[in-house]
Amino acid sequence: MNLSKRAVDIQASPIRKLMPFANEAKKNGTHIYHLNIGQPDIETPQKMLDVYSNYDSKVLAYGPSEGLDLYRKNLVKYYKKHEINISKEDIIVTTAGSEAIIFAMLVTCNESDEIIVPEPFYTNYNGFASISGVKLIPLTTYAEQGFSLPDNNKIEELITDKTRAIMLCNPGNPTGAVYPKEEIERLCGIAKKNNLFIISDEVYREFVYDGLKHASILDIHGMEDNAIMVDSISKRYSACGARIGCFISRNKSIMDSVLRFAQARLCPPTIDQLAANACIDIEEEYFKTIIEEYDKRRNVVFNEIQKIKNVVCVKPKGAFYIIVKLPIDDAEDFAKWMLQEFRLNNETVMFAPAEGFYATKNLGKNEIRIAYILNENDLKKAMKIFQQGLAEYLKK
Amino acid sequence: MNLSKRAVDIQASPIRKLMPFANEAKKNGTHIYHLNIGQPDIETPQKMLDVYSNYDSKVLAYGPSEGLDLYRKNLVKYYKKHEINISKEDIIVTTAGSEAIIFAMLVTCNESDEIIVPEPFYTNYNGFASISGVKLIPLTTYAEQGFSLPDNNKIEELITDKTRAIMLCNPGNPTGAVYPKEEIERLCGIAKKNNLFIISDEVYREFVYDGLKHASILDIHGMEDNAIMVDSISKRYSACGARIGCFISRNKSIMDSVLRFAQARLCPPTIDQLAANACIDIEEEYFKTIIEEYDKRRNVVFNEIQKIKNVVCVKPKGAFYIIVKLPIDDAEDFAKWMLQEFRLNNETVMFAPAEGFYATKNLGKNEIRIAYILNENDLKKAMKIFQQGLAEYLKK
Repeated sequence: MNLSKRAVDIQASPIRKLMPFANEAKKNGTHIYHLNIGQPDIETPQKMLDVYSNYDSKVLAYGPSEGLDLYRKNLVKYYKKHEINISKEDIIVTTAGSEAIIFAMLVTCNESDEIIVPEPFYTNYNGFASISGVKLIPLTTYAEQGFSLPDNNKIEELITDKTRAIMLCNPGNPTGAVYPKEEIERLCGIAKKNNLFIISDEVYREFVYDGLKHASILDIHGMEDNAIMVDSISKRYSACGARIGCFISRNKSIMDSVLRFAQARLCPPTIDQLAANACIDIEEEYFKTIIEEYDKRRNVVFNEIQKIKNVVCVKPKGAFYIIVKLPIDDAEDFAKWMLQEFRLNNETVMFAPAEGFYATKNLGKNEIRIAYILNENDLKKAMKIFQQGLAEYLKK
Repeated sequence: MNLSKRAVDIQASPIRKLMPFANEAKKNGTHIYHLNIGQPDIETPQKMLDVYSNYDSKVLAYGPSEGLDLYRKNLVKYYKKHEINISKEDIIVTTAGSEAIIFAMLVTCNESDEIIVPEPFYTNYNGFASISGVKLIPLTTYAEQGFSLPDNNKIEELITDKTRAIMLCNPGNPTGAVYPKEEIERLCGIAKKNNLFIISDEVYREFVYDGLKHASILDIHGMEDNAIMVDSISKRYSACGARIGCFISRNKSIMDSVLRFAQARLCPPTIDQLAANACIDIEEEYFKTIIEEYDKRRNVVFNEIQKIKNVVCVKPKGAFYIIVKLPIDDAEDFAKWMLQEFRLNNETVMFAPAEGFYATKNLGKNEIRIAYILNENDLKKAMKIFQQGLAEYLKK
């Protein structure tokens, strides 16, 4: 029995590839510092968890396909705080950001149409592209330049008659890059000129440092027809398991169509939406504390990396990831070696080889992504192990 | 800005089409008996709701892409009670049955490949087909024959070199048909002979009447490579809002591929899985009571329908739907008229025109689907209104 071509082709999680080695190490009693995944250790807000405790409906019923009316209304308020002015009708609640991205691909592209994406990019974009039959066209950005966007020529030379959209992750996973508003405007200029959509993945909106202000695609004038924003509460409220996101556009035909895609799968989880709704009015203090905490972590990781010779790493400005170019040939081999061979006081570190975040073959082979999602103390220990491990690996 | 072809083509919910008329009627103070949707009024088991109340983790984290290990282990026990012997590795937990069906289409079909489906069928299959680029080929079944499967010739003449699978809903939504084991075996013979997968949607497994025993595709010998089962807890535990389902197959390459599709979207909702898990050991009494209740409702609706002249309706044996062929030309017009014009003591009834459940043009125009999801008393009142409404409509 042959499977479909897409079933054969769909990428396995490049991060998960190393899990058997991690599990083996744990089985043998080794403690692993996990810097490989984006699962924050920050506590989910109590007022969100309280919603689960206080749920008192007798029947856990379907909600509307577009999401609970109450939640959509409140999301308007949330975005207003970020100076994004939209109406309830511009929002469809989705089962996490993942579904919102799939909807964005389905609504903009026919099978084999193309979306331009700055690489390195969130590896699951590949999976969503397989699901929707879309071809991702990588626009290479470089560690040396802090993964900033290339100039217009470099972008426009990728546009073909199959190109339907440019997709951004801002702040960026895995790069930590934050695109300034002028850069977004520059991209929008290209999109308008070439009749392209812009799909902006802004799930790390709150996670910007150094006093920067995040620029949303929804805040760019004249992009009403072209702009799609995808969002998620997973990182915002450290609620990855709730699976609540949303799809936003001011383009009425897009919303009409996405509603029909949404109707097919009936609705997003009901109680989880109520839980997300409880966080709408969360005090500014909540984010302030978290961002300060992540900023501290960012500094720990960055400062420790600076102590290593011959690495390339521009300090990232957002999200909670950092990409480091190492003086080695094969980061996957190094990652595997750390899990299998290297121990410091019976501890080791797991990180993500960055090759999986590149679509262009052979790029990123000597880069890794570190997610700074542990507390300062653990991070310091983890970075110490990392430094010593690397030094020993280089001696091999 | 042009959208994709699939964005333009995807079907709007044919049931939702009538919602504006229902809302208008409600606004004017009319009470509507909703027999149009499959949202049960049965209470969600308390032990399931208790899980939400008792959740005490501090971080609502991602679960594994294949679903929580605990839940998958317990699902093995659940299926064993139904004489379905599978292992944990054969199960991937999905975001409701919807996602499981999308995975089934993606893994078996390339774009423009074909799946044969007995019609009338669950209308959202159309949406999933649009999402996955699959073409559904209807195999017409008839109200007069209780929607039983046609003979082999009729089925085999639909098979082309594009056909990859036959999809079943058993017990059937919208037909209420339950296929006897010999019929499933007959289909499996065709599938084996022609190298086709069988995708069996068994979300109404528990809802069979008249002492019948449900036959699962997973219980058919020799189908290990060909069989895919999709399931959901939505109806089983009256927990439509939890969005928990699963995808099951013993075919290792299928499971390997579906895991990769599942990794792309990270995981199904975490707490909702725990809630579903709490129902694994639910007492047999729970289902006995519910099935008795639905059986009573089925009898109310069926008996009241029998009192109407010139209708065609074979008593359904499963699920909680019944299709009725009426002596009218246009069931949608009748449904709209009931919502706009007809009142009995300021009450009216909403049901689903069946045309939307057929893929073949012009079929089902004089049929409706009634979901018997109200209590006996309300159903009696609703059927009285229905009878009088129809009589008056026929006089027009």
